[in-house]
Amino acid sequence: MIREMLASTKGVPGMISFAGGFPSPETFPVNILADLFKEVITETGPDTLQYGASEGDNELKDAIIKWDTATQIFPSSRRDEHSPSILQQTGWSTSSTTQITPYALTRDELLICTGATNGIYYFTRALIEPGDVILCEGPTFLGSVVAFEANGAEVIPIDMDRDGIILDQLSDTIKNLRSQKKTIKFLYTIPDFQNPTGITMSIDRRYELIKLMQAEEILILEDDPYKELRYTGERLPSLFEIARSVYNDAQLVTLIKSFSKILGPGLRIAVAMGHPDIIKPMSSWLQKVIVNPEGVTQKVVARFIQKGYLIKHLAFIAQYYTPYNNAITAALEKYMPPSVSFTRPQGGIFVWVSTDSPLNFDALFPEIVAKKVAYIPGSKFYPEGFEKYNCLRLNFSYPTIEQIERGVEVLGKCIVHSA
Amino acid sequence: MIREMLASTKGVPGMISFAGGFPSPETFPVNILADLFKEVITETGPDTLQYGASEGDNELKDAIIKWDTATQIFPSSRRDEHSPSILQQTGWSTSSTTQITPYALTRDELLICTGATNGIYYFTRALIEPGDVILCEGPTFLGSVVAFEANGAEVIPIDMDRDGIILDQLSDTIKNLRSQKKTIKFLYTIPDFQNPTGITMSIDRRYELIKLMQAEEILILEDDPYKELRYTGERLPSLFEIARSVYNDAQLVTLIKSFSKILGPGLRIAVAMGHPDIIKPMSSWLQKVIVNPEGVTQKVVARFIQKGYLIKHLAFIAQYYTPYNNAITAALEKYMPPSVSFTRPQGGIFVWVSTDSPLNFDALFPEIVAKKVAYIPGSKFYPEGFEKYNCLRLNFSYPTIEQIERGVEVLGKCIVHSA
Repeated sequence: MIREMLASTKGVPGMISFAGGFPSPETFPVNILADLFKEVITETGPDTLQYGASEGDNELKDAIIKWDTATQIFPSSRRDEHSPSILQQTGWSTSSTTQITPYALTRDELLICTGATNGIYYFTRALIEPGDVILCEGPTFLGSVVAFEANGAEVIPIDMDRDGIILDQLSDTIKNLRSQKKTIKFLYTIPDFQNPTGITMSIDRRYELIKLMQAEEILILEDDPYKELRYTGERLPSLFEIARSVYNDAQLVTLIKSFSKILGPGLRIAVAMGHPDIIKPMSSWLQKVIVNPEGVTQKVVARFIQKGYLIKHLAFIAQYYTPYNNAITAALEKYMPPSVSFTRPQGGIFVWVSTDSPLNFDALFPEIVAKKVAYIPGSKFYPEGFEKYNCLRLNFSYPTIEQIERGVEVLGKCIVHSA
Repeated sequence: MIREMLASTKGVPGMISFAGGFPSPETFPVNILADLFKEVITETGPDTLQYGASEGDNELKDAIIKWDTATQIFPSSRRDEHSPSILQQTGWSTSSTTQITPYALTRDELLICTGATNGIYYFTRALIEPGDVILCEGPTFLGSVVAFEANGAEVIPIDMDRDGIILDQLSDTIKNLRSQKKTIKFLYTIPDFQNPTGITMSIDRRYELIKLMQAEEILILEDDPYKELRYTGERLPSLFEIARSVYNDAQLVTLIKSFSKILGPGLRIAVAMGHPDIIKPMSSWLQKVIVNPEGVTQKVVARFIQKGYLIKHLAFIAQYYTPYNNAITAALEKYMPPSVSFTRPQGGIFVWVSTDSPLNFDALFPEIVAKKVAYIPGSKFYPEGFEKYNCLRLNFSYPTIEQIERGVEVLGKCIVHSA
């Protein structure tokens, strides 16, 4: 459906598209990757071209473990130096009962996947029986909803406010579903620069969500494709890190980290991190579905991390996207009427726009496309039966800065005209 | 289970292993691939590192289509030149009613997959409802059986003779299953140098199988990882080609071709070829599971074919494995007692050994491994409940020629001793 809509916007001269979800090809480290691919085959060809471990290459796992350790917000050695504000915000640093226990991942807690959706598929396949419920943010990433539903799950979205998923509603929904004897298997969330809203879950909300899910005994699947794309504000600990370091709970959260928005989606490399009791059945599904992940790309990503390219490259990407993020916020402020609200993401590649007035952005799509601006109607990010129509998603990683300015102007006029 | 057994044989000094299913790393075209990887990223990086089409890269599809056309046994222009013996064998060339219609694949008949098992998974996922039956050769490739059963299928094996699957038994089984109101969804077969037996389905059997499956209206899934590894004898047309070119039936057979045994399994590249009505739902599953296949490797394989490396490389591989194939046949002739029979494959990487006497090669495994020879017991290649124990599989692509000679000698003595 989205495919057909978007197909109609492709190749049209002068079309400004906010519809995609693609990273800018300008951010791909082409030259370094070209050299690394050659180096990997030359130095390790006979091994790398052979069948590999289903769970993924140990060199890549070790590189990711090191990177994870180096980027934790709560490592004991750096606790006072780097994270006091976060700790103070939440009262954790001053509470005498709080022990922060930095964790170090082991290889059996990692599964290398063919992109994030692939990890989400194995997690779902490992846990879901037909009729089970998956909770998620509403709106949320459509690809995951499709994978959930294809595996027989019922997907129930929970509304968000500016701090993320609304816990009262989450709690009520859980009670309600359980009174109907439904089995809730897990909560799916994208805490950083969420797709499609750009909302980042606040630090308080993260703590409270974990407490609630622990109390309700519901697993969390944390999808994390955008965390490294932060343009402003302070990096927040993942739910995965908080659960492990603060709550000493290694089972509650499974984290999917993707390299698609960092190195290029064509490489199809992501990693699932979780308790071995969850990683093992995921790995068993991986074996049935792809036998083992592609070997060459795994080694290339391993070396990209090991050789120190990743840290520098992440700084470059954040710098690259910052003006695009600023441009779309400025344009929305300039051209949108007061009836329109929009998110102000601190990172990622999406902004969410919604109206007080009962506009229908599915119905308006042909008219706005005729004015050469494309977007994705908000309804497409809800499971069937939960659609909202007064909203839309704008992507700002693909259009130029001039296109952003002009496209938002056209969109604003259409909204004013239609309201 | 196999994994644990094999783990016990690894790293043991002096162990001769016939247990693997790995191609020899000596056959990987390391230098060419190293250059192609660099070239692909340098020349096409921004495109290739981006999200791609779910169905696979068009450049790779076009290269495969050209290759398929060039290697058909029945192309009209080469019909009299290359295939008279095959045509005469089956009576088709002399029959006045036979029209041979060469086919040309179109892009929508191809799906690029992450290895052959991945294609088999999508085919299964697209067709199978829990309780449906899949027919296969007995013994057969374990990985496929696991994928079939994981999707809820009941897997029923049919015995083979030296010409392949036994049609009387196949026909009787179909009748029997249908009288029990079972739904038979497809037949899974590996016609060339079958895993685990090394048996190649004869040309007559191919025609008769297609006629039977057409009459019974049962689809065929043809798994073809070894066809290019032919050391002697005449190349036979695939079931896919016969169905299309001779029976003018584009729906009956879906073919999975893998590059794992040709270029290296680490690349995880295979292609499914079939009718768009089957490829489309497979592609829809692929999208849910991996979004799209890895981009760089697809382009590398495309160029490997386009630039003419593939044809030369296939000749090299066939030449490379020939002495290993000869060595294992010679050793089996020399060291096996008359109670033992074994296949004499014309290609591939496996030989099947079975005994008249009621030996149990599961039970003998520890004893023979203690003598530093490893194999896979034949029982592991049957669905549960259909196991045979008087047989085993030997792989000859991984041990050296000296190891083959010595290992078969040890195995022969153990069999004589145990009988």
